[in-house]
Amino acid sequence: MANILPRSVQRLINELSRLPGIGPKSASRLTFYLLRGTDQTLALDLSEALVALKENTKFCSVCYNITESDPCEVCSNTERDETLLCVVEEPLDVVAIERSRAFTGRYHVLHGAISPVEGIGPDDLYIEPLIRRVEDGRFTEIIIATNATLEGDTTTRYLERRLAGSGARLTSLARGLSVGSDLEYTDEVTLSRALNGRQKL
Amino acid sequence: MANILPRSVQRLINELSRLPGIGPKSASRLTFYLLRGTDQTLALDLSEALVALKENTKFCSVCYNITESDPCEVCSNTERDETLLCVVEEPLDVVAIERSRAFTGRYHVLHGAISPVEGIGPDDLYIEPLIRRVEDGRFTEIIIATNATLEGDTTTRYLERRLAGSGARLTSLARGLSVGSDLEYTDEVTLSRALNGRQKL
Repeated sequence: MANILPRSVQRLINELSRLPGIGPKSASRLTFYLLRGTDQTLALDLSEALVALKENTKFCSVCYNITESDPCEVCSNTERDETLLCVVEEPLDVVAIERSRAFTGRYHVLHGAISPVEGIGPDDLYIEPLIRRVEDGRFTEIIIATNATLEGDTTTRYLERRLAGSGARLTSLARGLSVGSDLEYTDEVTLSRALNGRQKL
Repeated sequence: MANILPRSVQRLINELSRLPGIGPKSASRLTFYLLRGTDQTLALDLSEALVALKENTKFCSVCYNITESDPCEVCSNTERDETLLCVVEEPLDVVAIERSRAFTGRYHVLHGAISPVEGIGPDDLYIEPLIRRVEDGRFTEIIIATNATLEGDTTTRYLERRLAGSGARLTSLARGLSVGSDLEYTDEVTLSRALNGRQKL
């Protein structure tokens, strides 16, 4: 009576529980959804998509973004500004910046941020390829677009030092109020950054 | 610039979004987690578990629970009470009842509940096999353990009528306060059921 679940059901529950944000409860709900067959092809479609993900994707050898072709679409696009570089933590950050349509330069993906707490140091990130990539002075500006977190800020400070000799102007994203946000509900750190960064009308 | 995501990345995001409770945002977060390779084998482990789920599981031909062997472990266990039947909506309900260790009889899984709103009628559930299973009078009691929802209650009312001729005593689960719950925060319907079902100390 200890475990009434068939082995293959328990197995999928275990594998799904390894995903971030999915506990045993959600995992078993998802598994039974897949079993119910409301959506007959879903389990196998998912299975194939997972294999394809692993087989077809790699890191771009220039910018380390995830890509199916090397160099990636951004790196091989000659219409994009070759003198402007944006350094981000994760591939999803590239997606977010592209969606803003406010940037037309190149990217460099670090794949993480420096975090002494989690034991992630500069050597665990793609920082050395970044240094090599910028040392010939081809970029006039490098935007360090890390997250507005302790880890992101630590990474920015570190890169600031390491990239000082690149000849490029180093910048970071503006901090301030989110568009649509209420002053009343804005946390004090953001508000203080917004005040310090106030601009002439 | 419309879609910066590699095809196989977008594909997995799309497939994951088909799961209940997983929107495009969670789907892309999960996909990039799988890409990051913190857990190198996870994507392929998941893929294999999904295939195994589909290949190895079927419905038990007696109780319609999910099983790898037919008849299932409960139906083929001669130590369990053969005169007591518990009718539930979903396989997960069997898991929940087994966990309570308060039931040692047999199960019947309907695979849903009657829901006119969703267009689910008695013919969409495993009700006919239930009728055939009980008609020889082998069960002395049938516990109709549907969810405490409108659909569950509708299904119970329907089964009550259909099983009237089975010769078995028909019962349903007690309604009342959850163990550990505060009277103050208990909804009025539950409280009224708990009052009506009050028991002598």
